[in-house]
Amino acid sequence: MEPFEIQILGCGSAKPSTRHNTSSQLVDLRSKLFMIDCGEGTQLQMARYHASYARLNHIFISHLHGDHCFGLIGLISTLGMLGRGHAHSLHIHALPELETLLRPQIDYFCHEMPYEVVFHPFSYDHAEVIYDDRSVTVSTVPLNHRIPCCGFVFREKEGARHIRRDMIDAYEVPISQIGLIKNGADFVTPEGDVIANERLTMPPTPPRSYAYLCDTAPSVSVIPLIEGVDVLYHDATFATTEEGRAQATFHSTSAQAAAIASAARVGKLVLGHYSSRYDDERPLLDEALAVFPNTVLAREGMKIEVNKNCE
Amino acid sequence: MEPFEIQILGCGSAKPSTRHNTSSQLVDLRSKLFMIDCGEGTQLQMARYHASYARLNHIFISHLHGDHCFGLIGLISTLGMLGRGHAHSLHIHALPELETLLRPQIDYFCHEMPYEVVFHPFSYDHAEVIYDDRSVTVSTVPLNHRIPCCGFVFREKEGARHIRRDMIDAYEVPISQIGLIKNGADFVTPEGDVIANERLTMPPTPPRSYAYLCDTAPSVSVIPLIEGVDVLYHDATFATTEEGRAQATFHSTSAQAAAIASAARVGKLVLGHYSSRYDDERPLLDEALAVFPNTVLAREGMKIEVNKNCE
Repeated sequence: MEPFEIQILGCGSAKPSTRHNTSSQLVDLRSKLFMIDCGEGTQLQMARYHASYARLNHIFISHLHGDHCFGLIGLISTLGMLGRGHAHSLHIHALPELETLLRPQIDYFCHEMPYEVVFHPFSYDHAEVIYDDRSVTVSTVPLNHRIPCCGFVFREKEGARHIRRDMIDAYEVPISQIGLIKNGADFVTPEGDVIANERLTMPPTPPRSYAYLCDTAPSVSVIPLIEGVDVLYHDATFATTEEGRAQATFHSTSAQAAAIASAARVGKLVLGHYSSRYDDERPLLDEALAVFPNTVLAREGMKIEVNKNCE
Repeated sequence: MEPFEIQILGCGSAKPSTRHNTSSQLVDLRSKLFMIDCGEGTQLQMARYHASYARLNHIFISHLHGDHCFGLIGLISTLGMLGRGHAHSLHIHALPELETLLRPQIDYFCHEMPYEVVFHPFSYDHAEVIYDDRSVTVSTVPLNHRIPCCGFVFREKEGARHIRRDMIDAYEVPISQIGLIKNGADFVTPEGDVIANERLTMPPTPPRSYAYLCDTAPSVSVIPLIEGVDVLYHDATFATTEEGRAQATFHSTSAQAAAIASAARVGKLVLGHYSSRYDDERPLLDEALAVFPNTVLAREGMKIEVNKNCE
């Protein structure tokens, strides 16, 4: 199966901490690399974990708090220094204000840069598909934060059917027909017999999906938009003892994140965006596990495979 | 003696590296904390080395390449989150374009911030005193880089004379007179005898000085401006094998840095701003040592005491 993997580059919240970096992660999906959020120091985290600068073409920014976007200008500048060519644009999907804020800095600091930065604005008040290619769509999920903020859902498209090697051999299907059969065609033997596609193939792998919901107060309106995703990364800034603070700052407790995961029947929950007050996130995990058993703590460098049996 | 200490927060050059952070350092001088340059991730380096956010009031930016200033917006934002009050302005000394570039971001990302950021522009075409208080002056040193760029010299002011405890006791000088005597006054005994100040005191500690010259091609015009400083931090981006590249990019080799240190008769040379091509800076050190023996390699976290016998 082609890879669909998340790598955490930063899972702390805004205040500086030596335990965690600010928000950023990579989505590696069928040889394409996407980034979600880009806090300060993200380019260094990429270097630390040997992530590919060359494969990164699309960055999705959830909202315009600094801990989710202050690393962009450094990353953009570095991509230029690393020799990214003029045919290799970088696409940034964000609320429209980001271009207004960042373009003057790009023009000043990166005026000799050979490649182009293209901004793709989206609106935060309704869910929409903001990226679509032959293998994946990315949709927004409006969240409930202090400022306009969206989550993202990455949904793999259904692939071709799987060839049954044994049947192909048995019917002596020529190689030239394989592509057609993968796409659903029947096979006609030289004798004129029609072999139904269902005998020659098995159904395609069910498409996989990943949702990133950070930063947000717990919001039931997200549930239909993320229903059944294989992996959910959710704001878990606080423990239940700080539920009042979570509410005041439009963040979630880990138990609230788990309740959303449970209601949306996701496969696996990844907790993140930890407040810097925690020297140990184990209590956050324990509170979530009591509500939703398949929960893990994000940590920097961690890779999470997205699949149908996210154990 | 009151402390005068440099701490390196980053001594790499622009390309990302897991060996070094981009440029920033702290100057801790008689209880005041100054920052020079502020590359991406500087606020995190401060957290790592337990530097005081509260004592930092003045930041000096040498030039507007990203690896010297991309960390400012994150640091400014964090100081606000840490509760810096409205009576506690942050002063940034830089070329005038920095305010144009940074003010819109401060207004957008930090609009709830309780304290003020005050920019103090300086010009790069002549040396000038840009900061002056009762204990220190900071002067600019125009450098020879691809874009306008200045170094900085921190010069301690001459302090008060040192009281000779034995003589104060012998003449039974009352405490009320001590301050005047430290500042040079003679003492008149109750009998009307005049005791010359020189008998009661010893000369003040010679003032100490520190020069930061980064980024620059080797430039003889700096020599009179840094003559005799106790510690010099100098651009040493390359080894001699890369002298052509150093010239093309307006940087220095470590041997060129050492030649400047020698010509300016400084006390100690600190090499920094290493190219990311070096996995080991020992060859840079060796080439400098052959020219100027009292040379050290900067590394992150290192503290360098500035004194008259910089061994």
